[in-house]
Amino acid sequence: MSAIQFRVHHAAAGSSARRGAIQTPHGAIDTPAFVTVGTQAAVKGVTPQELHEAGAQALLANTYHLYLRPGPQLVAELGGLHRFMAWDGPLMTDSGGYQVFSLGFGLEHGIGKLVGMFPDETDPSAASGGLRTGSPRQPRIGQRPRLTRVDDQGVTFTSHIDGSRHRLTPELSIEIQEQLGADIILAFDEPTSPLHDEAYTVEALERTHSWAVRCLEARSRDGQALFGIVQGGAFREPRKRSADFIAALPFDGFAIGGSLGRSKRDMERVLEWSVPLLPAEAPRHMLGIGEPEDLFACVARGIDTFDCVAPTRHARHGIVYTAGGKLNLQQPRHRDSDLPVEAGCPCYTCQHFSRAYIHHLFRAQELLAYTLTSVHNLQAILGLMARIRTAIERGELEALQADVLEAYRSHRPDALPWAAANADS
Amino acid sequence: MSAIQFRVHHAAAGSSARRGAIQTPHGAIDTPAFVTVGTQAAVKGVTPQELHEAGAQALLANTYHLYLRPGPQLVAELGGLHRFMAWDGPLMTDSGGYQVFSLGFGLEHGIGKLVGMFPDETDPSAASGGLRTGSPRQPRIGQRPRLTRVDDQGVTFTSHIDGSRHRLTPELSIEIQEQLGADIILAFDEPTSPLHDEAYTVEALERTHSWAVRCLEARSRDGQALFGIVQGGAFREPRKRSADFIAALPFDGFAIGGSLGRSKRDMERVLEWSVPLLPAEAPRHMLGIGEPEDLFACVARGIDTFDCVAPTRHARHGIVYTAGGKLNLQQPRHRDSDLPVEAGCPCYTCQHFSRAYIHHLFRAQELLAYTLTSVHNLQAILGLMARIRTAIERGELEALQADVLEAYRSHRPDALPWAAANADS
Repeated sequence: MSAIQFRVHHAAAGSSARRGAIQTPHGAIDTPAFVTVGTQAAVKGVTPQELHEAGAQALLANTYHLYLRPGPQLVAELGGLHRFMAWDGPLMTDSGGYQVFSLGFGLEHGIGKLVGMFPDETDPSAASGGLRTGSPRQPRIGQRPRLTRVDDQGVTFTSHIDGSRHRLTPELSIEIQEQLGADIILAFDEPTSPLHDEAYTVEALERTHSWAVRCLEARSRDGQALFGIVQGGAFREPRKRSADFIAALPFDGFAIGGSLGRSKRDMERVLEWSVPLLPAEAPRHMLGIGEPEDLFACVARGIDTFDCVAPTRHARHGIVYTAGGKLNLQQPRHRDSDLPVEAGCPCYTCQHFSRAYIHHLFRAQELLAYTLTSVHNLQAILGLMARIRTAIERGELEALQADVLEAYRSHRPDALPWAAANADS
Repeated sequence: MSAIQFRVHHAAAGSSARRGAIQTPHGAIDTPAFVTVGTQAAVKGVTPQELHEAGAQALLANTYHLYLRPGPQLVAELGGLHRFMAWDGPLMTDSGGYQVFSLGFGLEHGIGKLVGMFPDETDPSAASGGLRTGSPRQPRIGQRPRLTRVDDQGVTFTSHIDGSRHRLTPELSIEIQEQLGADIILAFDEPTSPLHDEAYTVEALERTHSWAVRCLEARSRDGQALFGIVQGGAFREPRKRSADFIAALPFDGFAIGGSLGRSKRDMERVLEWSVPLLPAEAPRHMLGIGEPEDLFACVARGIDTFDCVAPTRHARHGIVYTAGGKLNLQQPRHRDSDLPVEAGCPCYTCQHFSRAYIHHLFRAQELLAYTLTSVHNLQAILGLMARIRTAIERGELEALQADVLEAYRSHRPDALPWAAANADS
């Protein structure tokens, strides 16, 4: 029996959107849900109490980082990840594959594999679940020696912390994730980049599929749900083949990983190829996606959960979400603004502080800056998910999408489209 | 009429300790009290909500820093410092003198004024209210050009932020502090260092006294209490003369500032000379003192309030207060400790997290580390003040002091005396 139960309460007419809940050993996740990323067993600058207050139900931590530091054995000895990080709600871990391979693709030199899969992910310590679509950047050759070597049995890599060599296999990834003890764990896979051709993408896919079977066989404990990951890049046949293959395995849920192409439309196509092939009764997770426009596009195509570092990473650069788009509070025009980040926002930050104060905190390099903007951005994205859930129940998802996306497309002089990321920073 | 009312509820027998309350326009401060320092209008890494939960009643912000950034005019336009930093409780500002002169003494070169007044204060941006007693360090010649020039009218100094030149006078300090709008403000003074001889100390004292009169004359608004500052270094006659002079002026309260000598006993002597000369009906503030042993020594000699950056600065270095002394959580021995920082401590940190987790956060350079240790250290020092208040009421202050100081003098292998500061970091 699965460690989780997933129930769909409402299915939208005219789209694949659905409203439901995943019951985990540590409580429920109302879906569609945004899962907040706590890479190193901590959401940067935000306490669990503040996460609860911002409406967070579930967190995701990164196996790669926790394997290297502090080590899964220690976390297990201390009672598991929930207790270690004092998060009593639902918890996910990824498999480590994304970080290991992003180190390889991002940093290796001169063998034809280039940066570009992971925009904004040049620092692998911050690489958890970043955006994988629509990078406007030119690919560039990495500057550092090759850190990652893959073979059919697993992958050998170099720690970004101390340069030590490590080897990760499907079996070890599962063992680590069992030691960490999250409610939902992920199969070990080999994601590919938009710069990989179809031939390499298929080669990696074969490994991902064989590793998926090995991950299922490696499980040794109850109480955790294991999600399979669909790969295949932005290529139609590999994606469909992967979805078919992974869907036929006894996973508790399914995730969409790897390259989503180079545009929003590419990402939509990947979902349109894959999701209909996945079992309707299992939850579907979208890895590394979390910008508002993308959430709507994915929910409408049947995605139930998301994880992404964008809200908290933007926050640490002074970039905050508002109904009118993103603002960069470090810009001088906010110096004397008595406005809250977002009028009417119920978060602690907006209830107490002005844009001018936060601008001051960034200029003065005060730690509180990062906390206040992160709390707001999490409230904003979690609040948007709550509105999406209500809209699905009421059959008003398209109307909500039009409202929300129109608001920031309107020409507010101090606003940017949400998707513009750090463009004005 | 004064903006504050001070009432003494209990006076200890056998010492000058007293239990009372200062009623301010923004609520009461139960005394003896520890006033938490928020140098740049923020307590580093701690929200006002967390400050309330840790038991903080009052904060102190630094005029020097806020004058340079964001500027008092802006703070006034935004409704004053309380609203700017969302602190609705009692608020103090210092006068700027301490930072301006610590820049001068600490950094000027080759004119016989040496570092040593302000141990641990080599970074002037972190210089607010540091420890001024018992520096074990050798004085050393500063490495930077002279930043500060004093004359009888005021002081000219160079900004540590951008090198711009500024001039501060008693009148301007009061104007700035009126724009900031704290409940209790301080007279502009010239503190001296343990390295100054008696002749220079007396010369500075003359200026401090004349500036005290000018500060009183410069006041232009109600609703703020103005405290005078007693100087005179660790010299008996200048200290007594200063206490006599300042006590005779119509201040709302009195602070002890400047050099307190080179030992705990020197500090005690300074208080024994000065405090009996101050009016019993006014509150007495001790500038820049906050280590537990010192709190007891000062309370017993009639001090009502303290401010100090030590609890939060130690915290950011991983050093936490326990009943058995200070611990440095960055040390490897805490790597696998499932203990809380302090068993039985009611703070958020101790209720939820292990030493091992905090050790991990420091190794991983996670922002949450600074918040969790700061919250604990503030709870510890504020909790100690609450115990001191109760002990005075019950006539048990000496017994409490013996208990508390004995606990960390006992030979716990993992503990250091509180006063050892960063010795093991």
